Amino acid sequence: MARLYGRDSRKKGMMPGSVVYVGKERTEPIDITVTDYTANELRDVTVENVEDVFGFRDSDSISWINVSGIHDAVVVQKIGEHFGIHPLVLEDIVNAGHRPKFEDGTDYLFAIIKMLDFTGSDDTLTSEQVSVVWGESWVITFQELPGDVLDSVRQRLRRTIPRVRFMDSDYLAYALLDTIVDHYFMVLEQLGERIELLEDDIAERPAESSLATIREIKHQLVFMRKVIWPLREAVAGLDRTESRLLHSATRPYLRDLYEHVIQVIDTVETFRDMVGGLLDLYHTGVSNRMNEIMKVLTIFASIFIPLGFLAGVYGMNFDTGISDLNMPELTLPFGYILFWGIAIAIAGGLLWYFRRQKWL
Amino acid sequence: MARLYGRDSRKKGMMPGSVVYVGKERTEPIDITVTDYTANELRDVTVENVEDVFGFRDSDSISWINVSGIHDAVVVQKIGEHFGIHPLVLEDIVNAGHRPKFEDGTDYLFAIIKMLDFTGSDDTLTSEQVSVVWGESWVITFQELPGDVLDSVRQRLRRTIPRVRFMDSDYLAYALLDTIVDHYFMVLEQLGERIELLEDDIAERPAESSLATIREIKHQLVFMRKVIWPLREAVAGLDRTESRLLHSATRPYLRDLYEHVIQVIDTVETFRDMVGGLLDLYHTGVSNRMNEIMKVLTIFASIFIPLGFLAGVYGMNFDTGISDLNMPELTLPFGYILFWGIAIAIAGGLLWYFRRQKWL
Amino acid sequence: MARLYGRDSRKKGMMPGSVVYVGKERTEPIDITVTDYTANELRDVTVENVEDVFGFRDSDSISWINVSGIHDAVVVQKIGEHFGIHPLVLEDIVNAGHRPKFEDGTDYLFAIIKMLDFTGSDDTLTSEQVSVVWGESWVITFQELPGDVLDSVRQRLRRTIPRVRFMDSDYLAYALLDTIVDHYFMVLEQLGERIELLEDDIAERPAESSLATIREIKHQLVFMRKVIWPLREAVAGLDRTESRLLHSATRPYLRDLYEHVIQVIDTVETFRDMVGGLLDLYHTGVSNRMNEIMKVLTIFASIFIPLGFLAGVYGMNFDTGISDLNMPELTLPFGYILFWGIAIAIAGGLLWYFRRQKWL
Amino acid sequence: MARLYGRDSRKKGMMPGSVVYVGKERTEPIDITVTDYTANELRDVTVENVEDVFGFRDSDSISWINVSGIHDAVVVQKIGEHFGIHPLVLEDIVNAGHRPKFEDGTDYLFAIIKMLDFTGSDDTLTSEQVSVVWGESWVITFQELPGDVLDSVRQRLRRTIPRVRFMDSDYLAYALLDTIVDHYFMVLEQLGERIELLEDDIAERPAESSLATIREIKHQLVFMRKVIWPLREAVAGLDRTESRLLHSATRPYLRDLYEHVIQVIDTVETFRDMVGGLLDLYHTGVSNRMNEIMKVLTIFASIFIPLGFLAGVYGMNFDTGISDLNMPELTLPFGYILFWGIAIAIAGGLLWYFRRQKWL
Amino acid sequence: MARLYGRDSRKKGMMPGSVVYVGKERTEPIDITVTDYTANELRDVTVENVEDVFGFRDSDSISWINVSGIHDAVVVQKIGEHFGIHPLVLEDIVNAGHRPKFEDGTDYLFAIIKMLDFTGSDDTLTSEQVSVVWGESWVITFQELPGDVLDSVRQRLRRTIPRVRFMDSDYLAYALLDTIVDHYFMVLEQLGERIELLEDDIAERPAESSLATIREIKHQLVFMRKVIWPLREAVAGLDRTESRLLHSATRPYLRDLYEHVIQVIDTVETFRDMVGGLLDLYHTGVSNRMNEIMKVLTIFASIFIPLGFLAGVYGMNFDTGISDLNMPELTLPFGYILFWGIAIAIAGGLLWYFRRQKWL
Repeated sequence: MARLYGRDSRKKGMMPGSVVYVGKERTEPIDITVTDYTANELRDVTVENVEDVFGFRDSDSISWINVSGIHDAVVVQKIGEHFGIHPLVLEDIVNAGHRPKFEDGTDYLFAIIKMLDFTGSDDTLTSEQVSVVWGESWVITFQELPGDVLDSVRQRLRRTIPRVRFMDSDYLAYALLDTIVDHYFMVLEQLGERIELLEDDIAERPAESSLATIREIKHQLVFMRKVIWPLREAVAGLDRTESRLLHSATRPYLRDLYEHVIQVIDTVETFRDMVGGLLDLYHTGVSNRMNEIMKVLTIFASIFIPLGFLAGVYGMNFDTGISDLNMPELTLPFGYILFWGIAIAIAGGLLWYFRRQKWL
Repeated sequence: MARLYGRDSRKKGMMPGSVVYVGKERTEPIDITVTDYTANELRDVTVENVEDVFGFRDSDSISWINVSGIHDAVVVQKIGEHFGIHPLVLEDIVNAGHRPKFEDGTDYLFAIIKMLDFTGSDDTLTSEQVSVVWGESWVITFQELPGDVLDSVRQRLRRTIPRVRFMDSDYLAYALLDTIVDHYFMVLEQLGERIELLEDDIAERPAESSLATIREIKHQLVFMRKVIWPLREAVAGLDRTESRLLHSATRPYLRDLYEHVIQVIDTVETFRDMVGGLLDLYHTGVSNRMNEIMKVLTIFASIFIPLGFLAGVYGMNFDTGISDLNMPELTLPFGYILFWGIAIAIAGGLLWYFRRQKWL
Repeated sequence: MARLYGRDSRKKGMMPGSVVYVGKERTEPIDITVTDYTANELRDVTVENVEDVFGFRDSDSISWINVSGIHDAVVVQKIGEHFGIHPLVLEDIVNAGHRPKFEDGTDYLFAIIKMLDFTGSDDTLTSEQVSVVWGESWVITFQELPGDVLDSVRQRLRRTIPRVRFMDSDYLAYALLDTIVDHYFMVLEQLGERIELLEDDIAERPAESSLATIREIKHQLVFMRKVIWPLREAVAGLDRTESRLLHSATRPYLRDLYEHVIQVIDTVETFRDMVGGLLDLYHTGVSNRMNEIMKVLTIFASIFIPLGFLAGVYGMNFDTGISDLNMPELTLPFGYILFWGIAIAIAGGLLWYFRRQKWL
Repeated sequence: MARLYGRDSRKKGMMPGSVVYVGKERTEPIDITVTDYTANELRDVTVENVEDVFGFRDSDSISWINVSGIHDAVVVQKIGEHFGIHPLVLEDIVNAGHRPKFEDGTDYLFAIIKMLDFTGSDDTLTSEQVSVVWGESWVITFQELPGDVLDSVRQRLRRTIPRVRFMDSDYLAYALLDTIVDHYFMVLEQLGERIELLEDDIAERPAESSLATIREIKHQLVFMRKVIWPLREAVAGLDRTESRLLHSATRPYLRDLYEHVIQVIDTVETFRDMVGGLLDLYHTGVSNRMNEIMKVLTIFASIFIPLGFLAGVYGMNFDTGISDLNMPELTLPFGYILFWGIAIAIAGGLLWYFRRQKWL
Repeated sequence: MARLYGRDSRKKGMMPGSVVYVGKERTEPIDITVTDYTANELRDVTVENVEDVFGFRDSDSISWINVSGIHDAVVVQKIGEHFGIHPLVLEDIVNAGHRPKFEDGTDYLFAIIKMLDFTGSDDTLTSEQVSVVWGESWVITFQELPGDVLDSVRQRLRRTIPRVRFMDSDYLAYALLDTIVDHYFMVLEQLGERIELLEDDIAERPAESSLATIREIKHQLVFMRKVIWPLREAVAGLDRTESRLLHSATRPYLRDLYEHVIQVIDTVETFRDMVGGLLDLYHTGVSNRMNEIMKVLTIFASIFIPLGFLAGVYGMNFDTGISDLNMPELTLPFGYILFWGIAIAIAGGLLWYFRRQKWL
């Protein structure tokens, strides 16, 4: 999660607007696919050379160009130049640690959003940056890795005929963003279940491992927060913008998207509250157990220390021969029985007292 | 309460605007009733087929169509299409986990609100979603279950003759919303009583069961908060909207409604504060009891350990025959009496000290 | 303080605008007095029938009609109808649990405010609702009980001749509101003194009774907050309103009133902070005492348990006859003296150690 | 610090606008001085009668009239009337517990500010109210006590020749306010040093006296906050006002003043944070010491209680003559040596265990 | 870090606008360098006398004048006067403890920013104030020390040919500010690593030294916060300003800069949260260890105190000769064996109980 902490120091000293990849080192080849469609026809194009996508800019059909892999800055720069994208925007696209944002570039609109998922065998929460740029008849998406979340949009595109709504590039862009935000709900559902399980665990018995899980969930929520808070502002900006690239028919969908983002934020905040409550619960459990331990100690010590003293008394060596006052109990025929009687009475009395104090 | 955590994952991959039921699985048949009235006449109509309600759209009378059960999306969709409701609105209606909201659909107004109630033998706090859509002369309400909260409005309708105020559909819609908000106060009253009882319990004796109750009330408040906070914004939006469907005579009532929502929010926040205070109270009680336990331990141990040492001393086997310096006390005629005297003096002195320290 | 928690459930199912008393049950007869004055003349009128006050609406003199007792909704309704007051306003007036508010009713202005006082032998903080409605030449106040706070305004009216400033009804209304707000400062002063005394008490010795007092003051501050926060908004609304019933000469006074409300809020918030600090102080005191107790236990146990062991050693029955290695100390002439020497050395060494650790 | 808590109850029942002194009782005579100057000439005038200052209102020179002592309300009222100051403003001036504020009185501007200082042998933080009223060619300052903070402005006036900048009364007023705000930095510096010293003290050894100091500093910060927060608003209001009495040349200075106030507020908030941290530090220190104590107890008890048991065993009186199985150790020639060996081994083993647990 | 706490008291009594150095005392000579360039040519000029830089004001080329050392107020004042800079701005420049700010001086723009770095062997976080003033064709930077952060801009200037973008002075100013903000990310990265290491340390074993490190990091974050929060406002002001000195081509870069500042603030806030969590973690660790200690004590005491009592019993001297009831166990042939059997049974039973309680 080191990427959380902002801009990479590798870039220091470079000019602003330098299109240099910032992020985890990767060597996979960049994969570009184009989905080109009209209301009734759709074809998938796999692209060999970056230059192959240039033609889609001015075609009549709607073209969705998906670039998987942003570590090859040259490819991004070539596409950017051809589609007239500002160098600062390109710099943002190849900076895998950028905050979600929206920008109106007059001839195109530009949004950065993060895909979230639990990956690996230990369900680490990872994020992947997706940049969406769209113009009149094209949408370009830049991902870090070839991913499958956006595939559901592709399948929907195939199934929906005629693709009337999708003939506006802004609706396609919305659909992509919406799919990613929808995926957040799945992540939240998983997280919610983990929190509820954990709460039951801790309420039953606070273990030190719960503490580690709390810490982990806390880190995940900090991570989600960093990723989703700026998104609110970004989607609000998208909703507010006056660009001719946003059709009025798409606006209700954007408001819907905005509502979903708010709902995600609300849920994250609720989770944060709940996790804070878990820590309280843990501490309460720990201090209740401390109480239990103290009670046991107190009961044992309070009963047996006085009894030990009593036994000690009758182990004293005062000379019974010299005077009748010296430990006459020792020479009573029922002395030993008496001793046990007293001992049991003391123990019983203390137990009764402790029970009345509700310690037992 | 899993529904708290947002959109259902079942919907993933569907197109936005797909009218698909999201919520607890239900199989009850959907029940539609129509209350159709003019200023002087009122009749209740039970509807067999969805199509039967279509006629009420353009009738001169005011018609309140109540749909109990939203799990049959087809019914909702048919009504929606006939009354000209946007697919995104219909999607919201059948999503039982939607946030409260208000939307101005030009030809109709649309609000989502949650009904709250304690149900079941263990007084679980449950919410039921109510969607209210209204046009010039009709109001449609969608509920999850046939409920009785809205019945009080129906009875009021019957009693009030002539129904001058109710001849505006917006006033009927307001009355429905107001009835639901009014019911919140009853829920809050119950909750307030529980909190006060709990506070007295904890102040008297902090039990581990109180902790579970605190947790439960905390969850209920989180739940209420999630349900009521967005309502504020929704009612404010309703109050602000410029729609021709809102008559100026209704506006003071809406402001009144808004005030009530604010009052509910205030009370929920006050309760949250109070529950936070309960946790403090519990911890204070627990640590005070720990102190009590420690005191008992300290008093017993501090008194009897020294005495035990003393008894031990006179149980030593130093040879009194070899020298007069070896434990001459043992051969004193009053040695044993002396021992008890010293023991009682030590115990008494320590008790006096502990009393002075206010430990007793 | 049950009234704190919102609207009474008795009203459920009634129409909004129903003028039904909500509050503590009361049976006292309603008392109406009128103070009617011009710049130079003033007369007090006691009213037998509600209808007697109707004449004061259009008189040239300024009339202050004070209604003590709002539990007889009929009386309130009659007055309201004659003076042209909206039913929703009347509903607010007879709801003794309403939030402070201000409303511009075009022909009249309307404000709700709470009188606060410590009453009874145990100084319970109670509030009483006062509603002030004023038109061109009349001011009507509705109180729950015949009270004496407003009397000071009546006395001032009598003393001030000529009553130039008071010839504007808005100035009279302001004077009434200001008197109530002024009384808050007295309540705060008392509360402040209690907090300071309590702080000194707790700093000296944290007792469990202090905890109950903290809880009580906390409840009182929650109560005050609920009563005074909405007042801020109400007075700000009064200050902002464009009504012709507010003369420019009165505006500086309203701003002054607003400043006082802010000052009250500031003080309440400061008190809340201070009470939070008291709880910290209490906990710190408790844990310091726990430390004291632990120290005593540790010192006693650490000194006497080793000594007890030593005594135990010389109480062992190893056969000194069999070998010179078996407990030769027992047969030393100075054995016993030596034992005491060692015991005292150990105790002294430990005491020195504990002193160095600053435990003594 | 009782004055912190708002308006004095002595004033209850008086008319708003009554110019009555509210504050600590004082009997010193009121002292009025006038500093009258042109760009090149300056003279100090000591005033015998209030009426002597009336002439300075319309003189061509700039006159700074300083009134030390506001407990003689008559003097304040006379000046106020002659200079055309609104009664509510005069009421504020003689109310020594007023919040800082700014008011545009059309013909004059009016500001209240608090002077802060550590006074007395125990460095109590005290505040003194200064009211500044200024018109076209005069500035009147009202102080509670003859003070020396404003003297530095008088000295600056004397030194600066020609007094071009000072020929605008607003610049003189600004200089006075700025001097007072500047003094806050000195107070903060002292406070900052105390906090840093305290932090070092507590980090080294948390003493109960530190707790008292924390409380004291907390009270001082609450006090400063109450005094400085409203000042922000006041200076912002002064900066925003459109009065012809504020020359554009003075505006940059006012913005500068505003920045200083913000900086003071920032610092106070930082200090509050730091003091909150100190309390944490104290608690951590206390609980670390508790741990130390517990460790000592545990080590002593865990080592010597088992050894005590062992010694007890060999003090038992089982009859060794009856059977070889009865305590044969007692008759071993090396029995006693063996006992010590076992005892030392047990103690050593436990010490090794405790060391491994890092308790030693 | 004493400088954190505002304006230096040395300045008290001086006129506002007095250009007097406020900061750590320094004696190094002031070093002035000029980088003068056109699109194709660049020359570095080292300046002997302040007057040498005057010529650059109206030259056609762009001149970057860097002044290292602001403790010689005379130099700053001379430059300021020649370049038409307001005295209050000059006062800010030589006050090394000023908050970051932006000001539009009509003929020039002015910004204060802080450079942050870890310096010295113990990685103290230090800040250095940089003031940037720029007009049509010149940029002047004032630093406290000759620094190397800005050098990277100088190198970039040399490398970039033609310097089209740099021909606007505002772009050069932006590049300088951006370089400093970029450096923050490096500082944050280092800090982030320290926090993560610390968290791992504390999770493993809470040591008292961790507490000191937490305190140190907390102080550093308070420091950064004080330095960076006002920067947000400053950069926002720069972004909003309408000055003709800001070209529209530079605006996107300023928005970019603003985003970076927001990201820095977000990260600082996240770090604060995390450090707060560290303290919780530490306390949890400490209280868990306390629990461990208590458990050991309880186990030892609870097992051996009863056993000690048992041994004590058989060490009693009741006269077995007088009656068969007096301690007959002592004369059993298997008495001793039996004793050990009972002792081991008790110890085993308790161990089993403690294991069931999960204390072992």
